Amino acid sequence: MRIPKPLQNLIDSFQKLPGIGPKTAQRLTYYLLHVPQTELDEFANSLESLKKDTVLCSICKNVSEKDPCPICSDTNRDNTQILVVEQPLDILAFERVGRYEGVYHVLHGAISPLDNIGPDEIFIDDLIKRVANHNGSFDSDSSALVSEVIIATNPTMEGDATAMYIAKKLRPKDDQPLAEKKSKLKVTRLGMGIPTGADLEYADETTLREALEGRRAL
Amino acid sequence: MRIPKPLQNLIDSFQKLPGIGPKTAQRLTYYLLHVPQTELDEFANSLESLKKDTVLCSICKNVSEKDPCPICSDTNRDNTQILVVEQPLDILAFERVGRYEGVYHVLHGAISPLDNIGPDEIFIDDLIKRVANHNGSFDSDSSALVSEVIIATNPTMEGDATAMYIAKKLRPKDDQPLAEKKSKLKVTRLGMGIPTGADLEYADETTLREALEGRRAL
Repeated sequence: MRIPKPLQNLIDSFQKLPGIGPKTAQRLTYYLLHVPQTELDEFANSLESLKKDTVLCSICKNVSEKDPCPICSDTNRDNTQILVVEQPLDILAFERVGRYEGVYHVLHGAISPLDNIGPDEIFIDDLIKRVANHNGSFDSDSSALVSEVIIATNPTMEGDATAMYIAKKLRPKDDQPLAEKKSKLKVTRLGMGIPTGADLEYADETTLREALEGRRAL
Repeated sequence: MRIPKPLQNLIDSFQKLPGIGPKTAQRLTYYLLHVPQTELDEFANSLESLKKDTVLCSICKNVSEKDPCPICSDTNRDNTQILVVEQPLDILAFERVGRYEGVYHVLHGAISPLDNIGPDEIFIDDLIKRVANHNGSFDSDSSALVSEVIIATNPTMEGDATAMYIAKKLRPKDDQPLAEKKSKLKVTRLGMGIPTGADLEYADETTLREALEGRRAL
């Protein structure tokens, strides 16, 4: 039996989503047949307006309704610290912790030569410029200087490569003015090691090595 | 941080779907931010037209673009056999097997007093009438008689209750005309037992009891 076209179309759309296979797509579609039309219309409207009603914040590139985004325009946040993440969702993870009071920068990806994603395809240049604009143009007003860039890309091959690339780009060059060198910009990376609740027995070698290297005095 | 409204709306819509929790809904929504607007529009259109462009077949109550549905209007199918299922998806499962050549009847649910679903909330009456119309009105044309109703509701409490109810309703009553009694309508239920590939060790008692009762000569 051929599945009716209107259902097949929706199954195809669901199937394009990550983690949703043909069976789940079918199940979701047939489930929606029992849902009132108003709910379907709401769902459709949110899909259509998802990108139309949002912008990327011109400062941090996070997805937002307004430009600049609520975090960048919040005067209570410490804009001398910039935490660099791959995806907007990573910001949510940090905001749930609630301990970080600086600002963010979203790269929207990581350097991945296999997927044809180089440094120019993600918002690395914007980060470099953002730091340079702050630290290069005026060195009298020390509160506006970026003092630390915390690189929080994922601990994967791509994330590590991206972190290395950014760190190299942010290192002061010999031909740069003295003021910029004096700014003593710290570039850090998230601590690596064993996660809370993990079982040492099942930890892989890289994680254990990182945990040993990153050991702290009690 | 508050998630921007357009994103939160879509997260809420995804979260209403079965098997999709808050985390998956977030992940899907942020994934869709990277998808071209045309694909989002397609997705939205399929959602909106899902119910508008489909009807329930007036004969078998399956979801279809046309009425009657392709199976009911297929003259190669044996309409003396009716296989009764709970959901349209169950028809797909039988059609994949490809061995069944009769027609179907979709109940769109099962009797479930806990969920306030009685016999009147699902298409049981339509099934009874469908059988009665065939077998009651003319007994000369034997090819149009329904000879067997195969009840293929799920092997759950609700499915079993529904099967019992239908069987009772289809049993000829004493005050019915002789023609109807003579039609010798068979009412059967899908065979129960151990599924292919299962491990006897882990089979539950009910399944084993059903398998013993349903044993067949080799």
